[in-house]
Amino acid sequence: MTDKKKTTIILFSGDYDKAMAAFIIANGAATYDHEVTIFSTFWGLNAFRRDHHVPVKKGFLERMFAKMMPRGVDKMGLSNMNFAGMGPKMIKHVMKKHNAMPLLELVEMAQEQGVKLVACTMTMDLLGLQKEELIDGLEYAGVAAYLADAEEGNVNLFI
Amino acid sequence: MTDKKKTTIILFSGDYDKAMAAFIIANGAATYDHEVTIFSTFWGLNAFRRDHHVPVKKGFLERMFAKMMPRGVDKMGLSNMNFAGMGPKMIKHVMKKHNAMPLLELVEMAQEQGVKLVACTMTMDLLGLQKEELIDGLEYAGVAAYLADAEEGNVNLFI
Amino acid sequence: MTDKKKTTIILFSGDYDKAMAAFIIANGAATYDHEVTIFSTFWGLNAFRRDHHVPVKKGFLERMFAKMMPRGVDKMGLSNMNFAGMGPKMIKHVMKKHNAMPLLELVEMAQEQGVKLVACTMTMDLLGLQKEELIDGLEYAGVAAYLADAEEGNVNLFI
Repeated sequence: MTDKKKTTIILFSGDYDKAMAAFIIANGAATYDHEVTIFSTFWGLNAFRRDHHVPVKKGFLERMFAKMMPRGVDKMGLSNMNFAGMGPKMIKHVMKKHNAMPLLELVEMAQEQGVKLVACTMTMDLLGLQKEELIDGLEYAGVAAYLADAEEGNVNLFI
Repeated sequence: MTDKKKTTIILFSGDYDKAMAAFIIANGAATYDHEVTIFSTFWGLNAFRRDHHVPVKKGFLERMFAKMMPRGVDKMGLSNMNFAGMGPKMIKHVMKKHNAMPLLELVEMAQEQGVKLVACTMTMDLLGLQKEELIDGLEYAGVAAYLADAEEGNVNLFI
Repeated sequence: MTDKKKTTIILFSGDYDKAMAAFIIANGAATYDHEVTIFSTFWGLNAFRRDHHVPVKKGFLERMFAKMMPRGVDKMGLSNMNFAGMGPKMIKHVMKKHNAMPLLELVEMAQEQGVKLVACTMTMDLLGLQKEELIDGLEYAGVAAYLADAEEGNVNLFI
């Protein structure tokens, strides 16, 4: 245990806007010298997928999931006003105009700032996602590791 | 007040996958000897409904709600990729294959581990749900009881 | 820092029912003498919009967002069973019948109880929302201000 404040975020959602909120909070907390963990589970794992197909052996259902789920942050939809994919384009356009960081850069910034990015191994198992299909620099753990971090911190969010 | 760590989860969502996440975290925390409360409110109360019709007196709107809302965990849909009900079947299939516990067993495990399951009385009132329609072993309380638990713990999530 | 317990809620969602949950928890916590902050971001800001059009200068995309997003709490939809707008009417009807406070009154009650209502300035920038378009009595801040509140409290929720 350290004296540092801790912030943990469970990223459950696979929505672009919710993932943005998660990474904006995480980067803010890291800037304020918190120890920050993003524990990515269920659809949230899509934010950590590589943006290209990685050839790995899978069963039929796992291949279906892999096909249907977005590959990486730039393929994710919005939780609101998605408009069959138009929404994310509008948001990205408006973000560019206002010099706001797109999600991809928010993830990179989090890694540079030492935010611990954890992929939920139970979800990987269920959805048939393999390490080769996810971005570099992740840790792999389950709910026990999440709880060990969360029980020492105050700012624990489920997004 | 005890020296035990406390974990509280507000289960607001009526989605199968989000309820799964809630009960996985709750069971994990109970295993690590936390005092755990799941406070089920709004659509989250559907997770505590009995899976068969229970004849109780209701007004018209309450009967409509009762008809439209899923009866128990096995009728709940997914927050993502629901595909008109196909999604939950796929998830359950893949869970069986990987020996993961279905939601119904996660709820039973929580009760066996002493997780406190609370039904929000304000929601019951609003949606016209009566105790006879909910599973056994619940406590009944409002937001004040939730806050009394939450203010003593660190891991407080809204799902 | 004070000795008061702190409760902070990030209101991300633009759904009527989720906003209701946020304000019920906030009002409950304020009654129990917590210092309470609702930090409203992304679609959650719609809860703070005035219910009439306010003439301000905007770019094209910002005008589109303003048109498409609900103006104030009474225009917001449900996260579940929205039924093309029927859901909120049913909920409001049933709330009236049970003497439950509608969202608009919950917001006013929060303001009377001294709940700090914060509008996320980054979101205002992105969506092109201006102070004139939002209700009175708000504070304006970013993620740093949120973290300063949250790190001193236990009950920190993301809704």
